[in-house]
Amino acid sequence: MKNFDINEDPHRRFNPLINEWVLVSPHRAKRPWQGQNETISTEQLPKYDPTCYLCPGNVRANGVNNPAYESSFVFENDFAAMKQDEIIFEDDIKHTFFKAKPEQGISRVVCFSPRHDLTLPEMEIADIENIIKTWQKEYTDLGNIKFINHVQIFENKGSVMGCSNPHPHGQIWAQSSLPTQVEKTQNSLKSYYDKNKRTLLEDYVTAELKAGERIVIENDHFVALVPFWAIWPYETMIVSKRAVNKITNFTAEESKSFAKILKQLTTKYDNLFNTSFPYSSGIHQSPTDGLDHPEWHFHMHFYPPLLRSATVKKFMVGYEMMGESQRDITPEKSAEILRQLSEVHYKSLVK
Amino acid sequence: MKNFDINEDPHRRFNPLINEWVLVSPHRAKRPWQGQNETISTEQLPKYDPTCYLCPGNVRANGVNNPAYESSFVFENDFAAMKQDEIIFEDDIKHTFFKAKPEQGISRVVCFSPRHDLTLPEMEIADIENIIKTWQKEYTDLGNIKFINHVQIFENKGSVMGCSNPHPHGQIWAQSSLPTQVEKTQNSLKSYYDKNKRTLLEDYVTAELKAGERIVIENDHFVALVPFWAIWPYETMIVSKRAVNKITNFTAEESKSFAKILKQLTTKYDNLFNTSFPYSSGIHQSPTDGLDHPEWHFHMHFYPPLLRSATVKKFMVGYEMMGESQRDITPEKSAEILRQLSEVHYKSLVK
Ligand SMILES: O=P(O)(O)O[C@H]1O[C@H](CO)[C@@H](O)[C@H](O)[C@H]1O
Ligand SMILES: O=P(O)(O)O[C@H]1O[C@H](CO)[C@@H](O)[C@H](O)[C@H]1O
Repeated sequence: MKNFDINEDPHRRFNPLINEWVLVSPHRAKRPWQGQNETISTEQLPKYDPTCYLCPGNVRANGVNNPAYESSFVFENDFAAMKQDEIIFEDDIKHTFFKAKPEQGISRVVCFSPRHDLTLPEMEIADIENIIKTWQKEYTDLGNIKFINHVQIFENKGSVMGCSNPHPHGQIWAQSSLPTQVEKTQNSLKSYYDKNKRTLLEDYVTAELKAGERIVIENDHFVALVPFWAIWPYETMIVSKRAVNKITNFTAEESKSFAKILKQLTTKYDNLFNTSFPYSSGIHQSPTDGLDHPEWHFHMHFYPPLLRSATVKKFMVGYEMMGESQRDITPEKSAEILRQLSEVHYKSLVK
Repeated sequence: MKNFDINEDPHRRFNPLINEWVLVSPHRAKRPWQGQNETISTEQLPKYDPTCYLCPGNVRANGVNNPAYESSFVFENDFAAMKQDEIIFEDDIKHTFFKAKPEQGISRVVCFSPRHDLTLPEMEIADIENIIKTWQKEYTDLGNIKFINHVQIFENKGSVMGCSNPHPHGQIWAQSSLPTQVEKTQNSLKSYYDKNKRTLLEDYVTAELKAGERIVIENDHFVALVPFWAIWPYETMIVSKRAVNKITNFTAEESKSFAKILKQLTTKYDNLFNTSFPYSSGIHQSPTDGLDHPEWHFHMHFYPPLLRSATVKKFMVGYEMMGESQRDITPEKSAEILRQLSEVHYKSLVK
C-alpha cells in the first residue's frame, strides 16, 4: 500500500461544470503508438484563393457573391442544421420513449479575415478585436430574435476537426432551446450561485490563481488555464476574472485583453508541435432568454485533439464512449508545457 | 406555419437512458462534403502476420510470447490505463474544485480468433459463441475480484476508431467505480424500474417492435435497432427481449441467438459501404458490486463514425462538443437502409 500521488497514480477527477468524472492515467503517456496518423497540410496557403467560397468576391455554393469585405464577414449558413420556420406541434405526452420536439434555429458563418492564410495567432490584436466586435453584434442581434434563447459561438479548426475550408472562420448556431451541455452547465452554475452568491467560476479562478500550477497565461482581465478536470490532452479554458456573464458586457479594456490572450494562447498552441494546431473552441455565456442569469460567467473552451505530435491524436473511442473520458497526461504537466512555450509564432521566426 | 413532420423538420429527441437530447437535421444529409476523407485499407490481410503482436506464438512489446492459441485468447494489457495497486487516500473535503480520488482497475485484451484476417462478420457462429463464452468468463472472474465493481467489455474496430492493430480483438476495462456513462444509465434504469417494476428496455423493446420502423434485425431472443435517440448516423443497439441483466445469465439458446445477431448486424455494416466497417461497440450490463440490480437489462451499443461512404465520416466537433450531439439523417431512414442490406458478406460474393 502506498500513499496517493496525483502525479503518478491512476485516478478520477470531478468536473463541477457538468457533474461528470474523467479518468486520468498519468503513467500511460509512455505507451508506444502504432495506430493511425493524421495527415497535416504544411502547404503555405495563398492570401487569396480564387476557388475558396469564403474569400472576398467569390461565389458561394448557392450562387451568391461574397462582398469585397475588409475585416470580418458574416453570412447565413447555406446548409444549416436548423431552420427558422415556425412549426405547429402538439406535445404527445403518451410517448414515453419517442419524445421529440421541433427546434427553430439560425446558423451563421463568421469569416475572421479577408486573408485566406491568416489564422487567429497570426492576426494583429486589432483585427482580433474586430472579430470580438462581430461576436458581440451577432450575440445581440440573434439574441434579440424572439424565438432565439441561446447563441452558440464556436470554431472548428483543422481538417481533423471536420473543418472543410482552411479559410479562417467560425460558426454561430442560435436556437430556441438550451443545448444539452449548456443546460448541464447552467444547472451547476445556478445551484452554486444560489448557495454562495458568487459565480462558480469566480471562486474557481481564485483557487486556480492561488494554486498556480494549471495557469497558462494571465493578464489583467483573463486567465487561460488547463482545467483540473480537462479531458483533452491540451484542453484549455479562457475565463474572465470578473464575473461578467456575456461578451456584450465586456469593457473596452476587457475586449482588448481578451484579444491579446486569444492571440497568445493560439500562438502557444501552434508552437507546441510547430503546426497549425487543430481544435474546436466555443464560448459559454448567458442564454438570451430575457432573464438575468447572474450565475453565468463568461468562458471559452478549447478542445484540441492532438496528443504527442502534429500527427498523433487522442482517440476518444470505446471505453471513453461507453464508460468515461480518459486522459494520458496530467493537466498540470500539460499546463507546464504550454506555459513554457514561446508567445512568438514559430512561422515568424523562419520568415 | 406548418405541422411538425418528424421526417422533414429539424427537431430534438430525448434519450431516456442518459437523460440527454440530440439535435436531428433530416434535411442536412444533402450537404456537399469538401472536408477530410479517411484513408481505408483495402489490402487483403494474411491469415497469420509474423510482425503482429496479437497473432499466436508471436512476441509482445513486454517480451512475453503469446501461446499457440486456437480460439480466443485473453491477456493483461501491457499499457493499462489503471493499476491494481491499493492506494491509501484520505478524502480532503476542503477541495471544492480539486476533487480527485484514486482508481483501481484491470485492463485486458481479448483476441477474437487466431486468424489475423477474420473480423466478426466473417467468423462462424460457433466461433462467435466462443467469444461470448470468453466474455462470460471474464465478466465472472473480474467481477469476483473484491475491488472490481464494474466490467466494461468493448471493441474499437478500424484505425479511424483508434485501433492500432487490425488483428480482430476487443478490450475489457474493469474497475472499482461505475464509469460516468454507466452511472447515468443506471440512474435512469433504476428510477424506471422502481416506478414500473419492469425494466426500461423491456418496455422500450415492446414499443419499438410495435412501431417497427427502427428495427434492423429481430430473432427469438434479441433485437437490433437504431435507437429513436441515436446520435451516430448508423448507430445501433442490440437488446435482449427478456429482461436479463448480465451476459452470464444467458441461456444456451440466448448465447446462440446473440452470436447470430452479432454476425448478421456486422455483416450488414460491412455491406453498407463495401468496407470493413469501423465502430466502437460496448456491452452495458449489471455492475459487479454484489447487489441484485433487477433494473439492469443487457444491451450492446454500436457507435460507427461513417456517414456517407467508406471515407466520409460524421465529425462530432464544435457544436456537438459545446452544445449537443447532432445528426444529419433520421434514425428511421438509417434503419431502413440497414434493414434492406443483405446478410451475405460482400467479400464472400467476390471470392
Ligand atoms: O487500444 P488501445 O491502444 O489501448 O487504445 C485505444 O482505446 C482506448 C480505450 O477506448 C483509448 O483510450 C485510446 O485512446 C485508443 O487509442
Ligand atoms: O462546418 P460544417 O461543414 O458546417 O460542419 C462541421 O461542423 C458542424 C458543427 O460542429 C458539424 O455538425 C459537422 O459534422 C462538421 O463537419
